[in-house]
Amino acid sequence: MKKIDLNSDLGESFGRYSCGNDYEIIKRISSANIACGFHAGDPVVMEQTVSFALKEGIAIGAHPGLPDLMGFGRRRMNISLKEARAYLIYQIGALDAFVKALGGRLQHVKPHGALYNMAASDYNLARAIAEAIYDVNSELILVGLANSQLIKAGEEVGLRVANEVFADRAYTNDGKLVSRRELGAVIKDSSLVVGRVLNMVLDNKVETIEGNEVEINADTICVHGDTESALALVEQLNQALEENNIEVVSLL
Amino acid sequence: MKKIDLNSDLGESFGRYSCGNDYEIIKRISSANIACGFHAGDPVVMEQTVSFALKEGIAIGAHPGLPDLMGFGRRRMNISLKEARAYLIYQIGALDAFVKALGGRLQHVKPHGALYNMAASDYNLARAIAEAIYDVNSELILVGLANSQLIKAGEEVGLRVANEVFADRAYTNDGKLVSRRELGAVIKDSSLVVGRVLNMVLDNKVETIEGNEVEINADTICVHGDTESALALVEQLNQALEENNIEVVSLL
Amino acid sequence: MKKIDLNSDLGESFGRYSCGNDYEIIKRISSANIACGFHAGDPVVMEQTVSFALKEGIAIGAHPGLPDLMGFGRRRMNISLKEARAYLIYQIGALDAFVKALGGRLQHVKPHGALYNMAASDYNLARAIAEAIYDVNSELILVGLANSQLIKAGEEVGLRVANEVFADRAYTNDGKLVSRRELGAVIKDSSLVVGRVLNMVLDNKVETIEGNEVEINADTICVHGDTESALALVEQLNQALEENNIEVVSLL
Amino acid sequence: MKKIDLNSDLGESFGRYSCGNDYEIIKRISSANIACGFHAGDPVVMEQTVSFALKEGIAIGAHPGLPDLMGFGRRRMNISLKEARAYLIYQIGALDAFVKALGGRLQHVKPHGALYNMAASDYNLARAIAEAIYDVNSELILVGLANSQLIKAGEEVGLRVANEVFADRAYTNDGKLVSRRELGAVIKDSSLVVGRVLNMVLDNKVETIEGNEVEINADTICVHGDTESALALVEQLNQALEENNIEVVSLL
Repeated sequence: MKKIDLNSDLGESFGRYSCGNDYEIIKRISSANIACGFHAGDPVVMEQTVSFALKEGIAIGAHPGLPDLMGFGRRRMNISLKEARAYLIYQIGALDAFVKALGGRLQHVKPHGALYNMAASDYNLARAIAEAIYDVNSELILVGLANSQLIKAGEEVGLRVANEVFADRAYTNDGKLVSRRELGAVIKDSSLVVGRVLNMVLDNKVETIEGNEVEINADTICVHGDTESALALVEQLNQALEENNIEVVSLL
Repeated sequence: MKKIDLNSDLGESFGRYSCGNDYEIIKRISSANIACGFHAGDPVVMEQTVSFALKEGIAIGAHPGLPDLMGFGRRRMNISLKEARAYLIYQIGALDAFVKALGGRLQHVKPHGALYNMAASDYNLARAIAEAIYDVNSELILVGLANSQLIKAGEEVGLRVANEVFADRAYTNDGKLVSRRELGAVIKDSSLVVGRVLNMVLDNKVETIEGNEVEINADTICVHGDTESALALVEQLNQALEENNIEVVSLL
Repeated sequence: MKKIDLNSDLGESFGRYSCGNDYEIIKRISSANIACGFHAGDPVVMEQTVSFALKEGIAIGAHPGLPDLMGFGRRRMNISLKEARAYLIYQIGALDAFVKALGGRLQHVKPHGALYNMAASDYNLARAIAEAIYDVNSELILVGLANSQLIKAGEEVGLRVANEVFADRAYTNDGKLVSRRELGAVIKDSSLVVGRVLNMVLDNKVETIEGNEVEINADTICVHGDTESALALVEQLNQALEENNIEVVSLL
Repeated sequence: MKKIDLNSDLGESFGRYSCGNDYEIIKRISSANIACGFHAGDPVVMEQTVSFALKEGIAIGAHPGLPDLMGFGRRRMNISLKEARAYLIYQIGALDAFVKALGGRLQHVKPHGALYNMAASDYNLARAIAEAIYDVNSELILVGLANSQLIKAGEEVGLRVANEVFADRAYTNDGKLVSRRELGAVIKDSSLVVGRVLNMVLDNKVETIEGNEVEINADTICVHGDTESALALVEQLNQALEENNIEVVSLL
């Protein structure tokens, strides 16, 4: 039986600011990426989110970002490799402590936002990130953009890696995500989205924005739960996966 | 042979801001309390400080504080017990990750500044802190003001505790520190300081500001290295301890 | 014709975090208190909120808070008078620059959250705040809790002051707010709320939680717009004020 | 009589962290660029620095930076034009309030670090910055790298501008600064530095790292005071300017 992981970014609230729809999406996924306080999240939110994920029995990953709460970690910053390494270790450790305190086990690490995108194409940065993860705990799984430098660096360092694909995003002929700024970058037709996911999971292929078909490894699919339609899409996706005998399970 | 631990607060630099004299003091102590990024310290500084402490072979503790970099964690804040717990878990985890990544082991936790002082007299806060530490790792040692509510809470929770005394601070008849705002709070005559330390370590007694003598448990002595005279005092202290056959060793 | 000001706290969003219902409430009030980036708000949010307030023609005030985004400025912090002064000047100046850049004029200053409550009973803090405001611009109006130390300090410093009352909060016999932690602190029956407001505005009196009636000065009423029912209440309030020939106008 | 302004970056301390040698350098310059709390400085430090500059009778400018205290504003961040504009207005307003509260007048604005460098070559960013300054106060002088996009944008917006040159930095044939990462970027021989400054001020020329001579406008010279040798260099520079009948005066 074919297997796939569904992951979503959770725990992005901060202080009085509430964000996302964690309580609904968490029931429909197998892995949670939890913000670690740099781009989003705070210690109280982290403990609550870890607690909720453990209760629902889904896998937990750290979702470290750039130190830019005002920009939600989405603005590229010119950090050094030494800084990247230290930011990763710090945030993974902080989240891991909540997981341990509540009796769980950390499964994976998925960098957030600009850090994720920068590491997808910058091998040196990707390598620093991968080594940081390995040094904290060599059994952690590194989740990165499918076929990216981050995946390559993770493999070379000796980490188990997971190729992430996006259900609702267009791809280019060289297997990269079409920038959100370009027309057609986000696919809104839910039946189209479901069809693409099945194609990626069953055949390791995706149709590109240019109209070709390229190879893509899909170990985990990123989904969102911040709107009603996003939640409905995840429902539809889960149903289609079940109908096609694809089991939704965490990476471990 | 009588034993005592000498501890000092390290890793308090932040970004471009350099603070303290870590490279000198670290050679003269047995345990380092390393700031965790809330009141001082940043991830790069944390990694450097942990690395240096491991190289010098001294024990490492987390030194968590209030989320108040502008006030250096010295301003009392009215945080909830849930927040106190989460702040502790977060910071201990962050520091511990650096210790693990560099091949070491975390020995103790000593709250910083206003958090330390608040927990010395507020049992509920002390209890929340002690439980947080226990939940992260029940083998960590809790360092708190000698005879304080923090020591009491640590014992009740089942943690190993270490009573901290201050070499250069005056005590009241009920065994508390004289506030820095009062005259005579800080003792500057180094021979007097050394004599008091010997009295605390050898006889478990300290002369109070009122002129009496009270019982005091001394497991670890807090020293500073931020000025030339502070360093000289630590030198003198080490020598006096050696002459009196008191071994300077970490708590573990 | 009797006059009253209706004020509300706006511009509390931060980065990606959206908060409040500014676009609805702003049409129903005469003065906006805009967060200045310490407890809430960021520069982009501040410019947007100032712009919107100017467009709607309502008066603008600075709403400075404690430097505690994680606690939304609601946690008491033991800041010095020098710090309080500097925090006020900084935040007022920052907001004022947006008002000037967009062609408006700053009307008032109303401290936020814990700072507001601390200054209501601590004369020294209140005095430092009042002097800071006066030094930046002696024509600014200081908005504080009716009959509080903040009002007293403002008057003594030579500022114009505005006594603030709360439509939906219970008062004690000595004219203070009943703490939110106590039963009956918040009044939920909207017709009761409206009746109390009319009593405060027309007769300068309010019934206390103990059942007596005390004198209260009401220059401005604080209202909220963060829920549907809060908005409905403000609608009802506006209508009742109109029916009683009370004009809703800003303080200037 | 020829005139030149000497400027230096001040007020970069933060909370307990002390930085720079403000009390010495301030006596040897004519204009102070004061940090505004984003990359360095805090409200208390700002008030102290403004007070000191007013006492010494030198001109005051705002020195706004990127919101990156951990990186001291030296790391490039991909901020939007709207964000750049709002960050400028916020910081200028905050500093200006201290200047006004203490009875002074703000003279200029000089962006800091990565923001300064980004705006030197990115016209759109430079334009957003120049417009923000103009909107706050059209009489402020914009200080930017000589001949840069920032100077160009300032002029086009209608601001008075001041071309800044660096006493101890090498220039390229196209009039730009040699990157600090390259060999020879910083000139250490003080007599060479003094000679170059005289050449820039008297003849509007500078010898480039390639050995040619290029035109350069010098309205203000940036000097540092953070080391003993830096202070000595400023002394030497002041003496040389005096001997050559060049008056050191602020821009206004």
